[in-house]
Amino acid sequence: MKNQFIMDIRAGDRVDDIFVLSEKILSQKRDGDNFLNVTLSDRTGTIKGVVWDNVEQIATGITSGNFAYVSGSVGDYKGDLQVVIKIMDPIPSDRIDPCDFLPKTPRDIEGMFERLLKRVNSIDTDYLKALIDAFFKDNEFVTKFKTAPAAKKMHHAYVGGLLEHTLSMLSLADKIAGHYGGINRDLLLTGTLLHDIGKIDEFEYQFKIDYSDEGRLLNHIVIGIKMLDDKLSEIRHFPEDQILMLKHMIVSHHGTREFGSPEPPKTIEAVLLNYIDEIDSKVNAIRDFIASEDPDETWTSYHRLLGRHFYKGNKSAYVPRIR
Amino acid sequence: MKNQFIMDIRAGDRVDDIFVLSEKILSQKRDGDNFLNVTLSDRTGTIKGVVWDNVEQIATGITSGNFAYVSGSVGDYKGDLQVVIKIMDPIPSDRIDPCDFLPKTPRDIEGMFERLLKRVNSIDTDYLKALIDAFFKDNEFVTKFKTAPAAKKMHHAYVGGLLEHTLSMLSLADKIAGHYGGINRDLLLTGTLLHDIGKIDEFEYQFKIDYSDEGRLLNHIVIGIKMLDDKLSEIRHFPEDQILMLKHMIVSHHGTREFGSPEPPKTIEAVLLNYIDEIDSKVNAIRDFIASEDPDETWTSYHRLLGRHFYKGNKSAYVPRIR
Amino acid sequence: MKNQFIMDIRAGDRVDDIFVLSEKILSQKRDGDNFLNVTLSDRTGTIKGVVWDNVEQIATGITSGNFAYVSGSVGDYKGDLQVVIKIMDPIPSDRIDPCDFLPKTPRDIEGMFERLLKRVNSIDTDYLKALIDAFFKDNEFVTKFKTAPAAKKMHHAYVGGLLEHTLSMLSLADKIAGHYGGINRDLLLTGTLLHDIGKIDEFEYQFKIDYSDEGRLLNHIVIGIKMLDDKLSEIRHFPEDQILMLKHMIVSHHGTREFGSPEPPKTIEAVLLNYIDEIDSKVNAIRDFIASEDPDETWTSYHRLLGRHFYKGNKSAYVPRIR
Amino acid sequence: MKNQFIMDIRAGDRVDDIFVLSEKILSQKRDGDNFLNVTLSDRTGTIKGVVWDNVEQIATGITSGNFAYVSGSVGDYKGDLQVVIKIMDPIPSDRIDPCDFLPKTPRDIEGMFERLLKRVNSIDTDYLKALIDAFFKDNEFVTKFKTAPAAKKMHHAYVGGLLEHTLSMLSLADKIAGHYGGINRDLLLTGTLLHDIGKIDEFEYQFKIDYSDEGRLLNHIVIGIKMLDDKLSEIRHFPEDQILMLKHMIVSHHGTREFGSPEPPKTIEAVLLNYIDEIDSKVNAIRDFIASEDPDETWTSYHRLLGRHFYKGNKSAYVPRIR
Amino acid sequence: MKNQFIMDIRAGDRVDDIFVLSEKILSQKRDGDNFLNVTLSDRTGTIKGVVWDNVEQIATGITSGNFAYVSGSVGDYKGDLQVVIKIMDPIPSDRIDPCDFLPKTPRDIEGMFERLLKRVNSIDTDYLKALIDAFFKDNEFVTKFKTAPAAKKMHHAYVGGLLEHTLSMLSLADKIAGHYGGINRDLLLTGTLLHDIGKIDEFEYQFKIDYSDEGRLLNHIVIGIKMLDDKLSEIRHFPEDQILMLKHMIVSHHGTREFGSPEPPKTIEAVLLNYIDEIDSKVNAIRDFIASEDPDETWTSYHRLLGRHFYKGNKSAYVPRIR
Amino acid sequence: MKNQFIMDIRAGDRVDDIFVLSEKILSQKRDGDNFLNVTLSDRTGTIKGVVWDNVEQIATGITSGNFAYVSGSVGDYKGDLQVVIKIMDPIPSDRIDPCDFLPKTPRDIEGMFERLLKRVNSIDTDYLKALIDAFFKDNEFVTKFKTAPAAKKMHHAYVGGLLEHTLSMLSLADKIAGHYGGINRDLLLTGTLLHDIGKIDEFEYQFKIDYSDEGRLLNHIVIGIKMLDDKLSEIRHFPEDQILMLKHMIVSHHGTREFGSPEPPKTIEAVLLNYIDEIDSKVNAIRDFIASEDPDETWTSYHRLLGRHFYKGNKSAYVPRIR
Repeated sequence: MKNQFIMDIRAGDRVDDIFVLSEKILSQKRDGDNFLNVTLSDRTGTIKGVVWDNVEQIATGITSGNFAYVSGSVGDYKGDLQVVIKIMDPIPSDRIDPCDFLPKTPRDIEGMFERLLKRVNSIDTDYLKALIDAFFKDNEFVTKFKTAPAAKKMHHAYVGGLLEHTLSMLSLADKIAGHYGGINRDLLLTGTLLHDIGKIDEFEYQFKIDYSDEGRLLNHIVIGIKMLDDKLSEIRHFPEDQILMLKHMIVSHHGTREFGSPEPPKTIEAVLLNYIDEIDSKVNAIRDFIASEDPDETWTSYHRLLGRHFYKGNKSAYVPRIR
Repeated sequence: MKNQFIMDIRAGDRVDDIFVLSEKILSQKRDGDNFLNVTLSDRTGTIKGVVWDNVEQIATGITSGNFAYVSGSVGDYKGDLQVVIKIMDPIPSDRIDPCDFLPKTPRDIEGMFERLLKRVNSIDTDYLKALIDAFFKDNEFVTKFKTAPAAKKMHHAYVGGLLEHTLSMLSLADKIAGHYGGINRDLLLTGTLLHDIGKIDEFEYQFKIDYSDEGRLLNHIVIGIKMLDDKLSEIRHFPEDQILMLKHMIVSHHGTREFGSPEPPKTIEAVLLNYIDEIDSKVNAIRDFIASEDPDETWTSYHRLLGRHFYKGNKSAYVPRIR
Repeated sequence: MKNQFIMDIRAGDRVDDIFVLSEKILSQKRDGDNFLNVTLSDRTGTIKGVVWDNVEQIATGITSGNFAYVSGSVGDYKGDLQVVIKIMDPIPSDRIDPCDFLPKTPRDIEGMFERLLKRVNSIDTDYLKALIDAFFKDNEFVTKFKTAPAAKKMHHAYVGGLLEHTLSMLSLADKIAGHYGGINRDLLLTGTLLHDIGKIDEFEYQFKIDYSDEGRLLNHIVIGIKMLDDKLSEIRHFPEDQILMLKHMIVSHHGTREFGSPEPPKTIEAVLLNYIDEIDSKVNAIRDFIASEDPDETWTSYHRLLGRHFYKGNKSAYVPRIR
Repeated sequence: MKNQFIMDIRAGDRVDDIFVLSEKILSQKRDGDNFLNVTLSDRTGTIKGVVWDNVEQIATGITSGNFAYVSGSVGDYKGDLQVVIKIMDPIPSDRIDPCDFLPKTPRDIEGMFERLLKRVNSIDTDYLKALIDAFFKDNEFVTKFKTAPAAKKMHHAYVGGLLEHTLSMLSLADKIAGHYGGINRDLLLTGTLLHDIGKIDEFEYQFKIDYSDEGRLLNHIVIGIKMLDDKLSEIRHFPEDQILMLKHMIVSHHGTREFGSPEPPKTIEAVLLNYIDEIDSKVNAIRDFIASEDPDETWTSYHRLLGRHFYKGNKSAYVPRIR
Repeated sequence: MKNQFIMDIRAGDRVDDIFVLSEKILSQKRDGDNFLNVTLSDRTGTIKGVVWDNVEQIATGITSGNFAYVSGSVGDYKGDLQVVIKIMDPIPSDRIDPCDFLPKTPRDIEGMFERLLKRVNSIDTDYLKALIDAFFKDNEFVTKFKTAPAAKKMHHAYVGGLLEHTLSMLSLADKIAGHYGGINRDLLLTGTLLHDIGKIDEFEYQFKIDYSDEGRLLNHIVIGIKMLDDKLSEIRHFPEDQILMLKHMIVSHHGTREFGSPEPPKTIEAVLLNYIDEIDSKVNAIRDFIASEDPDETWTSYHRLLGRHFYKGNKSAYVPRIR
Repeated sequence: MKNQFIMDIRAGDRVDDIFVLSEKILSQKRDGDNFLNVTLSDRTGTIKGVVWDNVEQIATGITSGNFAYVSGSVGDYKGDLQVVIKIMDPIPSDRIDPCDFLPKTPRDIEGMFERLLKRVNSIDTDYLKALIDAFFKDNEFVTKFKTAPAAKKMHHAYVGGLLEHTLSMLSLADKIAGHYGGINRDLLLTGTLLHDIGKIDEFEYQFKIDYSDEGRLLNHIVIGIKMLDDKLSEIRHFPEDQILMLKHMIVSHHGTREFGSPEPPKTIEAVLLNYIDEIDSKVNAIRDFIASEDPDETWTSYHRLLGRHFYKGNKSAYVPRIR
């Protein structure tokens, strides 16, 4: 566990902790001597560094992408902070706590998981119960489900993001199932719970969040269908019609072909799932974007993917809260 | 009030009630004599008719679009029902009950309006209260608001549709405002209440639902902004920032320029309003479509505007219900 | 096996064979007596019919969608042929040869299948061989694969169409694999063989071609991936990397999200498969369209889906041929 | 009024005038001493500057965005000009002439306004005359109308741009109204005059051109309709039909929903207004772009928004001229 | 020259003139006798007809598409007019005046051509003069140019339409060239004159307007470039730069690739040509559409290609006029 | 012929050869003395340089875009190579071998041309033979055809690229013509040979590849049609129908209007040509992209135009090969 994080470092501080060496460039001074320009990072940001002494020794002992114990002092260079590094030793990745290097949900993972279990326990259709059990008694699945991010960028792009997103959607789904008549609540909740499970293998999120080979080649929709099929094969007499409707909810949850669903939603439950997903991901994306911006400005900067500035007006700050 | 509706007419029945003469074509028999082919309609459908006798007298006394008292007997002609008409007399439109000729919400209008008032009474921001009062103490507005449809086709396309749609959205908005932190609930509910008010003048819905001149030339967004401005001018010290945010919710509630909003939603409340509108209009459209189709089929026919068939599976019927 | 097909019927003929009763409408003559308007069909087209006598008996004994033995004589009515029907008796569907009622490839199915086997036998990568064996030793699969259509409309929309399409593509794939260096020929051929297997369950094609529930809700891409997974589970040590690349070929073979692939092609083999599929389906669609049009015209009529007329010029007719 | 503008500054010059301090960064020399990197700007461009002495005093006395009296000398640093600043004192904004800091039309504003008045005086429909008077006797409106830009970027993006654009369009509208029969000239000219009035509040253009809150949240179409309504409320007996047609011209002048008009043009006059706006804005945008590019090149660089290079050939230069 | 046109025919009239036999269907009466259902047409519309006597003789002597001398009497059948035909004799097409069968500009062709010559005579650049001469001294070109339509549907879709469209555009081009400085007027007018010349071969318009083979395969842009090249080859020392700019105007006059121009307009003159073409074709299309609709309605019906209804309000009728 | 190429230069080397001076910036040292920052380039890349001595003399003698003999020594500056230049003398462009400065096909141009001749010699339709002769006996055409690139970027963007692309497509076209019956092989091969000939004038490729004026204003489709027309004018009795079909293949070979074809393919041969072009250009683009990327990575970086990463898996390297 790290004690020192990049966002807290100030000019004049001493540096004395583990970082990722994310970039390393060998350069030459005018007198011909070598020196190293480096970039260090952890889950809170990046900082520049420079090595003037023992350059060759340090340069050969460690490559970019590695973890390193770094010792040095912090100054200002052309308006940016810069660490003048004296020591930089490689550290094996098994001695690292990934949470020091990955962004993580601000909420309590175990607490969220308990609330999720409570919500799904209210489902009382037998075979759906059996299906949910098949997933939640699979420890490997549960471990991944608790830590997976919901995206690489855009929304819930942090450890625990998938769980947070799914929990919030379950609560919304329950409210909406109660609002309209004629909705199969148990089906809607089960589909909501499972719609994004493919993401646990779509991403790699050990030390940074990126797509896995499987994620890039198959997409979490196709991965999720396979995971569902594997669990369904363990349950006897699961009604064929319900299998189709559950799978259809996963297949269609992006709403249109343009957004990656091979078929659009063709049942009321699938239509609702698509909207609930839209609301929860957009609200999370916008609130995180607003939170990352200068709190004194009335407007955010331009959000490239959403194609607009957002207005904050004079309202009290947006404090994320899930009930 | 009519006693006899087209959907109930069977071969062998006598016809004896008021209908709209929606089409009238003068034709000639092989022997050179004239006869009339006509179409009659009311809020439940249309039926063909033919006039063999007193053709000239009947033809000149009444033009298509008029209401008519019709007397005759019903037979089958090439597989369709056909009224052989003996009497067809024009009826002035002020002796007509529009509800006989317009589709109407299956729910109780006064009951819905009371529940709407109750919901908006929970808003406790002073100036928003004052604004809502300005609307709901305007009897002309209230009368129109209770009867206006929400659309010509597609969703809530019936008398009382605007009220039904707004009430359902208010309930959803309240649930979602409570789900996420940092939402200005009173603003969201007020924006929801007012987002479609322009529709009371966008449509004409005396005897059939169609666009008004104003509706076709200006769009309900522009009409609604003017109605809001008129009421705002009656309230002193309404905060400028809140005026902008309210108007913005009306301006942006279609979500994108492609769908007719000059600007996309740029506040959390406007983003949520757009999704709530989407959900409620699509759910209503799909359920009405399913209800109008053969209940014995597993699939509906192809929905042209939504671009797909809908699947009904083996579930019990969709009974529309609002809580 | 039928002896008489609709496209050969002429005015003056007697009718005496089995047809599908595709439509049945009870009508009334001016004198009040009932008669039946019907539509009969087989794989070569449709013809109108009328029943003047024994109407009630015939009407109750048989419903639309049933097969019927029909006896009558053919006349002209308003420029169309019309069968005046004397007898119409229901026939159980197990006494029917589906090929009488479904359009079918003009090529020899067994001959095409042998050539397909020969082509795939040239694949000499062990685990791919094992996979292909897993499919071709599964009799249920083989039976369906030989008869499935490749589409409901547009291209290869007939019994045996999937086989014909796959065989033609395999031959093209082999040529193109030899043209460019660096292509994994065995992977390309296997992917081509399997890319559309999901279609055997996407369609129902017993007596007419239509989408199955599974087809409409899941799409043949998702169905095909499941079929591949089932066979892969029977083979030990199948290289993980090759599983991904094979599945990716199925997932991406429509080329873009707009056309239903959740991911676009990201390997050379997947890129080629998409183009080979495009070429073979478009060439088949255009040639069938040209063949169905008036041979004396220089231009075809407008092809709605392809958005153009096609030009035939002075060339000798397009005789479909596969080598 | 400034005497010295950035585009005229050369290496070796002394600087001695007022500028906007658009950026200010505190940095540290290797010896630990602080220095300031700054950017200065006026309506002709930007220049870099550096402060080596009295850094703390200067840094605290003035913040970025302020106006400053700057004194120093100009040198070259890495190929760019750089002001070595000795004095930098804040100047209150009320002592500033905005025209020193905002780009401005090269044409005479009062002269253009007189020609505009002359053109609109030729309108002889009574109620339209009254409407125009209502606007032009409102001094606050006139002042803003004369100075507002027509855009932030792209075309007429300078003080006086709205007037210049409107005047040019009025002249075109008059020519085209005379070309085609059946055009209501007075309506076309009035609609042209008013189509962009909302821009006087859509932008802020005191010291730089940017969108106002109102502009970003409501769009100049909605703002303009409100301004029109306010003036219409002062005129009795304005024909309802003409109100609708005028408002429709504002609502539809962007031509399609994609470009921000809630409704497309549905009258001949609205159709023409849209094209006249298109022509005048594109011609202005292209000519300004060509004028800003190297006059010795046959082609301009790539215009990102218009998506092409423009060709200048061997023609004499494009001298903008309005008749 | 015909004396009797279909739009003037009334029930009770005798028919006695030449028509196109556009459709011919042989039918059978219930008694087994043959009769003929036919459709007749001329430039003013179509009318149904029936032949009860001498059916075989009439049926074999004339095929659909032929001209025919028709004699008979007019009655009403099911609400439509119907000619009971006694005589129908084929007429060779060289005895026909095409203007009886093709819609034609309401304006005087020779008068328009003179005004066009006058306008182009004001061009005083030598080589452009020479180019225009090359076209206008080519009698075959002139004959076609005077009679060609500008389209099959949508705008100026009648004999003389190309000339009318070009003349109107020339006048507009001249006005706009005078409005903006820096326009090469002679180039703009020459480009306008020639932009659509390819249409004289894109269409066939002897007895009805349709695309030619060349038109469908090559498009009038490519055809027009070839015609221009042929004339340019007759003129020595035509400046290369001007050839490029002229050809570019033809190539780019549809504005974007989506509308069929391989390159978008990249000179001011090409940009203007595109807008002038847009204005003139849309104004013509909308006015013709309004003129063809019920004059008593406030709104037109829905225009499918332009995607809207048009509003006519209370204005006096749109009387087309070119100055 | 150069001996020294930029991609081979290492720190410590001496530089002593000809380069393009692609950029030249005059700067000032802190002491006020001038120095020059320059960029040098050849077909293998670019390198930075600096001139400390004789600055004025060197700066005035040579301008950017010129060729220069450069002498100096190579060091490292901030991690990049930098040439400290002592001599930089201008070299006239006629003493330059363009191949030193342009990227070139890795294949043998003469060898490819021979194989192309052999393939087209198999065409035995007389008039097509005559047409091909007309092109290949035109030495100016042949010289350009052998050296032209097929694009500025994206695919075959090097000297000899057009020939390489055309040869590869001819071979594919021959295979596909043999695969499907009813294809006019000679027409398909001739159309393939000629489809891109306009590119020899669409690009300038003396010392770098860029669009010519003609290329930007007319597009290679329009240029190619003109070249074809010129050659067709030399051949008597070329069948009109075949002219149309050949020209149509050039006009439509981009497949849709969006991609620059004024008409889509309307013959089987034109449809095939479009696909063959697509396959060959995409396969070349993807393989070149993969080859230019780090061979140790499983994935390429993101390809901006194709909108995806490409997967290389564990396969042996892609060795380009044409048979």
